Amino acid sequence: MHELTITTERHTQLIDITQQVRTAAAGAHGAAVLVYVPHTTAGLTINEHADPLVARDFETALERIAPEGWGWQHVEEGEENAPSHIRASLMGPQVLVPLRDGELALGTWQGIFFCELDGPRTRRVYVTVLQ
Amino acid sequence: MHELTITTERHTQLIDITQQVRTAAAGAHGAAVLVYVPHTTAGLTINEHADPLVARDFETALERIAPEGWGWQHVEEGEENAPSHIRASLMGPQVLVPLRDGELALGTWQGIFFCELDGPRTRRVYVTVLQ
Amino acid sequence: MHELTITTERHTQLIDITQQVRTAAAGAHGAAVLVYVPHTTAGLTINEHADPLVARDFETALERIAPEGWGWQHVEEGEENAPSHIRASLMGPQVLVPLRDGELALGTWQGIFFCELDGPRTRRVYVTVLQ
Repeated sequence: MHELTITTERHTQLIDITQQVRTAAAGAHGAAVLVYVPHTTAGLTINEHADPLVARDFETALERIAPEGWGWQHVEEGEENAPSHIRASLMGPQVLVPLRDGELALGTWQGIFFCELDGPRTRRVYVTVLQ
Repeated sequence: MHELTITTERHTQLIDITQQVRTAAAGAHGAAVLVYVPHTTAGLTINEHADPLVARDFETALERIAPEGWGWQHVEEGEENAPSHIRASLMGPQVLVPLRDGELALGTWQGIFFCELDGPRTRRVYVTVLQ
Repeated sequence: MHELTITTERHTQLIDITQQVRTAAAGAHGAAVLVYVPHTTAGLTINEHADPLVARDFETALERIAPEGWGWQHVEEGEENAPSHIRASLMGPQVLVPLRDGELALGTWQGIFFCELDGPRTRRVYVTVLQ
């Protein structure tokens, strides 16, 4: 299992980590690569990384789909970050990409995104090769 | 493949099944544990299980994101449970957690939640170790 | 890795691909089947395929949860298809189904759906057996 460290800069921020995952999985012999986030206010998704505006649209959308002001019950360190938890689970804690000839079988436009939903923070991501 | 049985008590209810998954996977030699729900109105997610109010917030949020009253077409046994199906897929039918030294590599605050979205019912969950 | 080709007919359309996945995975010796979409405006989910109205409800719901008209920034080929990207990630790029006695361990009502979110198009789906 490889461990990546991601430093985020904004409250809600999608960060392209495709190259870091590719490096962590380089030379692996297996059928798929599991990327996993051990946090509860961050997630992972796969989507377009050619146009950076797609990531910006995700940030806006996640804040609208599970908005502040829904009368959340969970309060953390004096701060209401409940919607961050929901947004994280809407994206999901993991992605799994098949390997083809030892390479991630990502589509032409696909990149792997770390989804920060309660930043800025320093985060970890695990990369595991499955057979 | 191990099979867990979960009994739910409310229409929408997140239940922490971390310990049951841990027990099912104990002593396993592998790279990751797949947890899978063979139901269409239930899902799985990983999120904070330290504060039980996080689970309560999920229940409220899922009922608001895919609400009753959107003019759903699917009717089951005289009951409109269409949004339960959507909510289940928003969480997803499976989670996959890497193993490290034979233990689930969950983050400090992470727990695995069964998401009941059309209860109360008796449900099954499959636990499979991947290499 | 097997590759399926899916032809879609509508802008937003869930298509039951259970039988194609089953055929692609037939005779496989493994623990689970990974189904993966190499596109950024399409996803996968598992849900009820007995009543085709469930799929129709998903189409309506996804278009309402991430609607047109939120002032999206991403524009593609003169067309605002940003919400298609969000909807794709809400469903997710992959599903993973455990195998039991060489068969997909789907629940009684479960089918695997390809989720077209920016059609009509010709799409690919990868099917990989994991150990």
